[in-house]
Amino acid sequence: MKLEEMQIEEIAQEIISLYHEKKYSQIKEIFSEMNPTDVAGLFEEFAPERQVLFFRLLPKEEAAETFVELDNDTQEAIIRAFSDTELREVLDELYLDDTVDIIEEMPATIVKRILKNTDAHTRDMINTLLKYPEDSAGSIMTPEFVDLKRNNTVEDAIKRIRRTGVDKETIYTCYVTDESRHLIGVITVKELLLHDNDDRIEDLMEEKVIYINTHDDQEKAADLLIKYDFLALPVVDMENRLVGIITVDDAMDVLQDENTEDIQKMNAIVPNEKPYLKMSVFETWKSRIMWLMFLMVSATFTSLILNAFENKLSAMIVLTSFIPMLTGTSGNAGGQASAVIIRAISLKEINYKDIFKVMWKEFRVGLVCGLTLAAVNFVKIWLIDRSLFGMDGITIKVDLVISLTLVIEIIFAKMVGCAFPIIAKKLKFDPAVISSPFITTVMDALSLLVYFWLATAILHI
Amino acid sequence: MKLEEMQIEEIAQEIISLYHEKKYSQIKEIFSEMNPTDVAGLFEEFAPERQVLFFRLLPKEEAAETFVELDNDTQEAIIRAFSDTELREVLDELYLDDTVDIIEEMPATIVKRILKNTDAHTRDMINTLLKYPEDSAGSIMTPEFVDLKRNNTVEDAIKRIRRTGVDKETIYTCYVTDESRHLIGVITVKELLLHDNDDRIEDLMEEKVIYINTHDDQEKAADLLIKYDFLALPVVDMENRLVGIITVDDAMDVLQDENTEDIQKMNAIVPNEKPYLKMSVFETWKSRIMWLMFLMVSATFTSLILNAFENKLSAMIVLTSFIPMLTGTSGNAGGQASAVIIRAISLKEINYKDIFKVMWKEFRVGLVCGLTLAAVNFVKIWLIDRSLFGMDGITIKVDLVISLTLVIEIIFAKMVGCAFPIIAKKLKFDPAVISSPFITTVMDALSLLVYFWLATAILHI
Repeated sequence: MKLEEMQIEEIAQEIISLYHEKKYSQIKEIFSEMNPTDVAGLFEEFAPERQVLFFRLLPKEEAAETFVELDNDTQEAIIRAFSDTELREVLDELYLDDTVDIIEEMPATIVKRILKNTDAHTRDMINTLLKYPEDSAGSIMTPEFVDLKRNNTVEDAIKRIRRTGVDKETIYTCYVTDESRHLIGVITVKELLLHDNDDRIEDLMEEKVIYINTHDDQEKAADLLIKYDFLALPVVDMENRLVGIITVDDAMDVLQDENTEDIQKMNAIVPNEKPYLKMSVFETWKSRIMWLMFLMVSATFTSLILNAFENKLSAMIVLTSFIPMLTGTSGNAGGQASAVIIRAISLKEINYKDIFKVMWKEFRVGLVCGLTLAAVNFVKIWLIDRSLFGMDGITIKVDLVISLTLVIEIIFAKMVGCAFPIIAKKLKFDPAVISSPFITTVMDALSLLVYFWLATAILHI
Repeated sequence: MKLEEMQIEEIAQEIISLYHEKKYSQIKEIFSEMNPTDVAGLFEEFAPERQVLFFRLLPKEEAAETFVELDNDTQEAIIRAFSDTELREVLDELYLDDTVDIIEEMPATIVKRILKNTDAHTRDMINTLLKYPEDSAGSIMTPEFVDLKRNNTVEDAIKRIRRTGVDKETIYTCYVTDESRHLIGVITVKELLLHDNDDRIEDLMEEKVIYINTHDDQEKAADLLIKYDFLALPVVDMENRLVGIITVDDAMDVLQDENTEDIQKMNAIVPNEKPYLKMSVFETWKSRIMWLMFLMVSATFTSLILNAFENKLSAMIVLTSFIPMLTGTSGNAGGQASAVIIRAISLKEINYKDIFKVMWKEFRVGLVCGLTLAAVNFVKIWLIDRSLFGMDGITIKVDLVISLTLVIEIIFAKMVGCAFPIIAKKLKFDPAVISSPFITTVMDALSLLVYFWLATAILHI
């Protein structure tokens, strides 16, 4: 049963007409046949006052699962309408990392109500989690994991899972700790099920544990989960005590956010986590104006170069016609190289020691691309621009200047495009700040210098 | 124990010196203390002839896990050096989807050897998997899952997992099928462990099963796994029979590949799955030249526009100095909008019905960005370009033409940048083909037209 875009809207229509006919039990039935994630998607189609009403029609066990998937505005509206009892019922079913995620997005009054309706122990844990820096591993972990002792048997372990597992975000990876809560091993439920009841955990557990620190970046956690194909990654505090786990679904979300952030940076946008449609015009402006302004002002260099060669341009105005083509092509060529290198750095395929290997390769790629484009361009200008469109002032020498500029500027563009992100990374900047627009601006100036230098040398203007 | 980049190189050095001293047992010990993924990373530091030798020092159970993580060249070298017995030992330990992945990358002689060394049943399954179209869900699924019957009890189920689980890629999600192998329900090991031994599967199983078809795109599988936070997704054939599952680790890989592909397309590169350092100069050239060529030739429009206004430019050569700034800024503004919209489409945040909402928003963002930039630019040209750098020919009217062009071109750029990807998607093209370089080329021509139109109107040239 796969619910596509169109169906969601149809179901929403259906529910609203059932609501007008007061056929609430039929609405309940529709909800109970859907996956909570889809129910949450459905809720976005309803007006706020109906969201609360419909939420109360959800089967108890699905209400919390649906709640987690709702967007923040809907969550807030529903909490406001909730009685304390209703709020407690939902909170009891949530995993702690989800509760913390919700708290982080709610206004202070709602946060107070949430904390008032949780028990003292849970409140303590929430407060601890809230203290971890944003984007840290600690901020996305959950303290709800299965912990075992080394002298447990497989039977003990399975009993413990059966007793406590209902509240754990995952039971499939269990962590073995010593008396001081230090992490000493890890064992999967698969291992447990495939061994005899009286085998001992310490003989079965994997002692080569890969873990992360609470203060490490969440991106590192996601990278480790992907690299090692784990379902969960243990998180330890400064004293190496196990304090939480990060599950693979959270890692996926981090990964998607990081990818979005990279794409934003690569296009000269200050990263912003909000979905596009939720951002105000002012917020959108704020995320875009800084780079646009910086790049516009940086273009002063190209204006000065053009101004300096003003007399030469007047003498041979046809040279102007090819400026956008030349700057455009070098910007594109450089942008290709920087995008590929930024991605390769982010996938850990290359690092600083590869810089000469990379530059040598880009030199050759630039040379071949430059020669190919120059050849096509040479013929195109002669046959199309000059003969077909009758553009004035094109001579063989002019054509040569333009085509030679292409070869040189493309080699430069590839070298600049590949070297800048690697150097940025080395200097501890995010390589993705070397955006295509930035490369374009640098290449505009460089290309014009090459163009005028060649024009002076060959055309003697 | 986290192994960072530097350590890997140090360990490789250590192993090579131990090898020269013939201390093989110490090498074995180092390997056994490392995670197979890290051992594979280590192998890339060794020369090919040593890779085979070192591979034989791996503990049996870890050899296969390491093998899967090696790059294709190393895998090929090792298989070539293997005896049939050694090959069979590794193949027996591999999950079928991994075997298929390896086969797809190997030359025909190696494929023959692999198939010769698998039993008839496995060979049949491999051949079936190989037949699914590239990038389809079928091509990344594995047929090794736990299947249960509706009248099983929890105890039966756990027994079945214990008996057959060792060969299954995941045991944590079990699938309930009827006599004709149709998928009728799904149950997790967590559910099994939390219920009594004599509870019946049909009373516990989730009947709202989300599944995918073998011929659906693998990207859809990854999207579903993320959306619903599943550990595995069932795959059914045309007759709705359960034929395989896709696990979350494979979905993560698909996701990363798709993100890489989007970044490549957004920067005018023909997508290529090979890691950067594995691509030859010719392959790199091939992936980049097509778009560079197309965009270069498209720039003929800008050349023609400039040529048409040649006389006006001669009359007021200062106008030329600001062409790269104007085209650059409109390209950047349009690139920002298209990148954000392409990403939002790929994250399913917006679709066709949002086009007017999006355009209205981008109109306002463009207006505010345009006004901000124009104001700064107006002052900058007057005080810096004219007074400080003494650029000739700048008058208030010239300054006005340039600044007004900014406002209009930025609004155009934002509208073009947001509308093109949505329309491309509607026309069943990949929105990411609307690359920033493409937007830049379109905006170059549009900006020049606006510029000359304003210059003619205001400066009467």
